[in-house]
Amino acid sequence: MTKFRATVSYDGTEFIGFQRQAAGRTVQGELEQAIEKVCGEQVTVIGAGRTDTGVHATGQVIGFAAANWKHGIERLQKAINVNLPFDVAVRDVADADDHFHPRFSAASRTYEYSILVSDVRQPLARRYAWHLEHLPDVDAMNGAADRLIGTHDFAAFGSAPEGGTDTVRTLKQAHWTRDGNRLTFLVESNAFLFRMVRRIVATLVRAGQGKDSAEEIEHVLHSRNPDLAKGAAPACGLCLISVSY
Amino acid sequence: MTKFRATVSYDGTEFIGFQRQAAGRTVQGELEQAIEKVCGEQVTVIGAGRTDTGVHATGQVIGFAAANWKHGIERLQKAINVNLPFDVAVRDVADADDHFHPRFSAASRTYEYSILVSDVRQPLARRYAWHLEHLPDVDAMNGAADRLIGTHDFAAFGSAPEGGTDTVRTLKQAHWTRDGNRLTFLVESNAFLFRMVRRIVATLVRAGQGKDSAEEIEHVLHSRNPDLAKGAAPACGLCLISVSY
Repeated sequence: MTKFRATVSYDGTEFIGFQRQAAGRTVQGELEQAIEKVCGEQVTVIGAGRTDTGVHATGQVIGFAAANWKHGIERLQKAINVNLPFDVAVRDVADADDHFHPRFSAASRTYEYSILVSDVRQPLARRYAWHLEHLPDVDAMNGAADRLIGTHDFAAFGSAPEGGTDTVRTLKQAHWTRDGNRLTFLVESNAFLFRMVRRIVATLVRAGQGKDSAEEIEHVLHSRNPDLAKGAAPACGLCLISVSY
Repeated sequence: MTKFRATVSYDGTEFIGFQRQAAGRTVQGELEQAIEKVCGEQVTVIGAGRTDTGVHATGQVIGFAAANWKHGIERLQKAINVNLPFDVAVRDVADADDHFHPRFSAASRTYEYSILVSDVRQPLARRYAWHLEHLPDVDAMNGAADRLIGTHDFAAFGSAPEGGTDTVRTLKQAHWTRDGNRLTFLVESNAFLFRMVRRIVATLVRAGQGKDSAEEIEHVLHSRNPDLAKGAAPACGLCLISVSY
């Protein structure tokens, strides 16, 4: 069996998420269809991060096995891209060893969340950023973000995927930067709970708007009570940018 | 009668163009619906540029008359924006004098055309740029663009809108700049023919790819023969950025 790993970009706008489902357009479904067409055999694509409806990626990592392909990885990449729709592309393909698993082998995932601040909505930015009318206090957001870094039970900010029960995660980075009217949140964790980044972003923006203090947010974290964390930021601002192994 | 002018942004992806048509989603249609809801009267919105299917705008100028509105321009802008879909926004509203006509009063329109050069498609850039795999020769593109500046019969590059016959236009600016892997074409004319920018872009890219020389392109211009200008660049790269009065 020949195993491959690949880095994938996609515009999540028109997908109901990464993971194949009984009905609806998914990134996994599009990738499997393209690879099956190219390799002439049934394949299962596994992704490092099961991004939610509307979430984008520039650095999703996938793995798949294809016994029939004999033409090298460069031609494989080109052939898959020709068969993919406009909103998914394979950035690179590499040979993978037998033990490689995109999800279980991953040491950490890094997401970026984008906010655009402007008094009027900007239609050309709207698919890839959360629009806020007023600039939140970025220092307050970072002060609150600092409280989340480290190993914690993040049950207040998300649920374990697929019936899992372990909600302890290790947040390695969580930092906002401002470039003019654009705010970018870079967040890295060994793994993320379902909706975790978007719920953390909503909470940090509340801190930046003076609605909650860093102490209150630390209290929410320690409560492990999902009813205490208020809201989730829109999916359009979120992008999976890299996976480390 | 109270007349207003406004600057409008839109993401053209899901529109069949600016101008209202018998069937299909148009920017004019969405604007008229929103303004009618806000002002409680039937209105006709006139745009400075009748952008084509899939073409974007950050600086479209519109005009409309609304006798019933008594609450000032700031509240008018907010109320219209609340009633517009995510892909259209009114950037500003101003009072207009009786003689103002968005199209006939306009002295020039400026468009920007974006190209993204990368060996692999970039899904997150794809809605707003033409993807090319190889970098064309920007100096050659500008050398050819220089030949088009001035007053010419541009019949080879487009047709007069709505049964008009005058195909003479005055191109004031036509220049490519490169920023890393992004090429931007800034083009200003007193007015544009139907498809003119996209046909000029396709022609200039051919020059940048060494397929046509600047002399051949000048020959196409002077021929006034639309069969000689080859192709039109994709609509997604085009954006109406400003209108001068």
